[in-house]
Amino acid sequence: MSFAPMLESDVTSWSGESDVVVVGFGGAGACAAIAAADEGASVMIVEAASASGGSTALSSAEIYLGGGTKIQKAVGYEDSVEDVFGYLMASNGPQADASKVRAYAEGGAEHLDWLMSLGVPFKASELKERAMMALTDDCLLYTGSEKAWPYCEQYKPAPRGHNLEVEGDNGGPLLTKILLQQVEQRGIDIHYETRALRLIVSCHGPQQRIVGLAVRQNMQEHYFRAGRGVVLCAGGFIMNEDMVREYCPQFLDNKTQIGNPNDTGTGIQMGLSVGGRVINMHEGFLSLPFYPPATLTFGIFVNGQGQRFINEDAYHGRIGSFLVNQSYPVYLILNVEDYGNYETESWLQAPVVATGESLEELVSELDLPTGQLERTIERFNEDVSERVDRLFHKDISWLKTLEAPFVALDCTPGAGAFFPCFTLGGLDTTVDGAVRSVHEGVIPGLYAAGRTACGVPRRGDGYASGSSVGDATFSGRMAGRSVAVEESL
Amino acid sequence: MSFAPMLESDVTSWSGESDVVVVGFGGAGACAAIAAADEGASVMIVEAASASGGSTALSSAEIYLGGGTKIQKAVGYEDSVEDVFGYLMASNGPQADASKVRAYAEGGAEHLDWLMSLGVPFKASELKERAMMALTDDCLLYTGSEKAWPYCEQYKPAPRGHNLEVEGDNGGPLLTKILLQQVEQRGIDIHYETRALRLIVSCHGPQQRIVGLAVRQNMQEHYFRAGRGVVLCAGGFIMNEDMVREYCPQFLDNKTQIGNPNDTGTGIQMGLSVGGRVINMHEGFLSLPFYPPATLTFGIFVNGQGQRFINEDAYHGRIGSFLVNQSYPVYLILNVEDYGNYETESWLQAPVVATGESLEELVSELDLPTGQLERTIERFNEDVSERVDRLFHKDISWLKTLEAPFVALDCTPGAGAFFPCFTLGGLDTTVDGAVRSVHEGVIPGLYAAGRTACGVPRRGDGYASGSSVGDATFSGRMAGRSVAVEESL
Repeated sequence: MSFAPMLESDVTSWSGESDVVVVGFGGAGACAAIAAADEGASVMIVEAASASGGSTALSSAEIYLGGGTKIQKAVGYEDSVEDVFGYLMASNGPQADASKVRAYAEGGAEHLDWLMSLGVPFKASELKERAMMALTDDCLLYTGSEKAWPYCEQYKPAPRGHNLEVEGDNGGPLLTKILLQQVEQRGIDIHYETRALRLIVSCHGPQQRIVGLAVRQNMQEHYFRAGRGVVLCAGGFIMNEDMVREYCPQFLDNKTQIGNPNDTGTGIQMGLSVGGRVINMHEGFLSLPFYPPATLTFGIFVNGQGQRFINEDAYHGRIGSFLVNQSYPVYLILNVEDYGNYETESWLQAPVVATGESLEELVSELDLPTGQLERTIERFNEDVSERVDRLFHKDISWLKTLEAPFVALDCTPGAGAFFPCFTLGGLDTTVDGAVRSVHEGVIPGLYAAGRTACGVPRRGDGYASGSSVGDATFSGRMAGRSVAVEESL
Repeated sequence: MSFAPMLESDVTSWSGESDVVVVGFGGAGACAAIAAADEGASVMIVEAASASGGSTALSSAEIYLGGGTKIQKAVGYEDSVEDVFGYLMASNGPQADASKVRAYAEGGAEHLDWLMSLGVPFKASELKERAMMALTDDCLLYTGSEKAWPYCEQYKPAPRGHNLEVEGDNGGPLLTKILLQQVEQRGIDIHYETRALRLIVSCHGPQQRIVGLAVRQNMQEHYFRAGRGVVLCAGGFIMNEDMVREYCPQFLDNKTQIGNPNDTGTGIQMGLSVGGRVINMHEGFLSLPFYPPATLTFGIFVNGQGQRFINEDAYHGRIGSFLVNQSYPVYLILNVEDYGNYETESWLQAPVVATGESLEELVSELDLPTGQLERTIERFNEDVSERVDRLFHKDISWLKTLEAPFVALDCTPGAGAFFPCFTLGGLDTTVDGAVRSVHEGVIPGLYAAGRTACGVPRRGDGYASGSSVGDATFSGRMAGRSVAVEESL
């Protein structure tokens, strides 16, 4: 499918006009629309689905923010902008964008205030368990690897996942509902079941400016004029198999692509089609959601060499990203007593591959080099007895002697374990959300936010839950604010 | 610097015209020019430097080809197209391009014949040592990880590095000289010290066709018309710090960017500027050239956990790529007797960080978790005594008991060891070299080859020496042949 832009001069009649046209009504699009409207712009949203929410609605909608948010302070955490900045720079690796991370760290507390001002509820409380998400209405939880090595030695940890005040895994729907109300209150023009087809440009070539959007509604093409600009908030591309094969084929075999069905890269393709630059297209979130039950963290992961390869108290996404680069098989070795409620509580779906009343029995059922698991466990148990994980620095609260009876879960990709993934590459944008051109500067009249852009989260092995919804709402707001004050056509 | 294209209608006068304009006179550009000329096209080459050769001239110019080349057969190796195809698909990972790998595997023997028909000399002989390059005039050598696990278990190995018949590390200059003679013999119009500035297009927008090239010569701009097309053979982008920071920042700190000074991504930027698509921009060759002396292969690499992480008989590029993703420090632990002529023969430059008349003494000088190196060596020595490396399957010919006196080299990035790197991303092209568009199909009149395109080699951890010059000459030829028969303007 081609997203080649059309010329304004080929538009026979406009079906509508507003200062700002937002493509996509997920978390990023909603916040872009609200922010643009609050700057006084007239705003229109086009959304392919028949309801709002996008992938945000499907998520837990934790929001990763720090630097001393209202909730952090109320609960008693001192978190500094510099610790947020340092942690995000380190965990997002050499490709971290310092200007975006800086804005996100410095603006974190204020962004939470803004969300609260819209009516998004957060309770001044904390969930202390190691959890994939809060199923209570408690707010703060650790959603990254802040307390885990090596980051814990570099930056002062604080919980930065802000869970909405709602029972169960219902943050996404609640956030979506509130954002929808806010959009509706502002009289923003919403077009559901409207598929963005291509951007409309003033001309081809160096004078090009984005002036509108062609869409399909009810089998008919319509053209909407955007007086100040278009904001692409159409999600990532994990649901577009051709694009995944082209840019990040490691996310195909034995992985589960998560997101909403319209995460097909439409926004990225439209940006590319008018000369936008894409970056970080090979990267994505790739997780092994092995807790709950948190007690599985007492176990050790071993690779095809029978060696440990990570501190098991790291965030599940970091573990998944490390895991896929090991020699296979990969097993999680546990005391049976820590297996706990695995069968009812776990998302992991990794099959039990062996059990053993003794280590010998366990080993006999595993496909590992002779004698190596025994050495690995002996070493680990020595470290446990000395209360220090000398190899991987797993926190002492997670150190526990491995002893029979044992159970081993097969976490090898393809063996059954759940490896959810989504993309972290997209249009290169300024901190204000303007889309960078393959030539110099930015593309006049074009903005992008959320997973259509390449934002704060940039690496699977450094990802933290809540950084996508955090980044989507934050970058959407920034883009909405900026496009609203573009010079009008 | 902007590479935005210029319009044909803005060209006041043409300084020259030919069917084909080739940008860059390295290995790819030379072969593109020769192939196009041999199809009957008039050809012009523009080259920024004052001589030909590009990065090919600086290389050893091994040429990675297999599937039963004349030399392989003469030396007595049976190598099949399917083994070449299988090995290259596996070693280039999920991002391998099956159509390019297929053409390269099937066309390998014929490509060597073609080079020989141009006068490139290859001797029917083999260099049996494990070497980074042949310093003799022998031809065949193993230049990848074909004999190393895991590939040795998957595809029948054969040496595929074809070294030119010349003493010393002089393959690059010799290949360059021969290709230059062949270009000159064909009366191809060569413009040295001529910098490509931007492509000239028939118009902006969907009817765009590439019709020429703007260049700077002697401080003046000139315009060359290309009746059938332009072939971008301007190298990779490892010398462009901004682009490296944008696309593959892992190649900055503590790495040595290798190539010629004009590997600044000019070709890729020009391709982007007219709507070309780039892929695999994050990847590159990244090596730890730790042999010669080959005896260092008897040692073991250990990471910050004191664990081995690779079979040390793998290709140096595979080892470098694995190494940088370990916890640091990384050491190479050796018997002193295998240290051999390290100080005079080695390229590695890794400092001796410790020596020991006993293991205890060695360990006391290293920054490793207590007790772990002892375990690792004990395990390794047990495997050596049983003639099988159960963990990493290093070939038995490289298994030797580790025993005092020891020496340890510090191979941690930043400690002094040499980590040469270059890029493996570029314009996405068809197997014929046509540049794929961000819209559908290809860009009329635009081709790319060598490191300006994303070709056969796609991963640092699967790279084989000779695959860049092999791919450059092969893809250059394919592009030259194809552009020559494009419909004329």
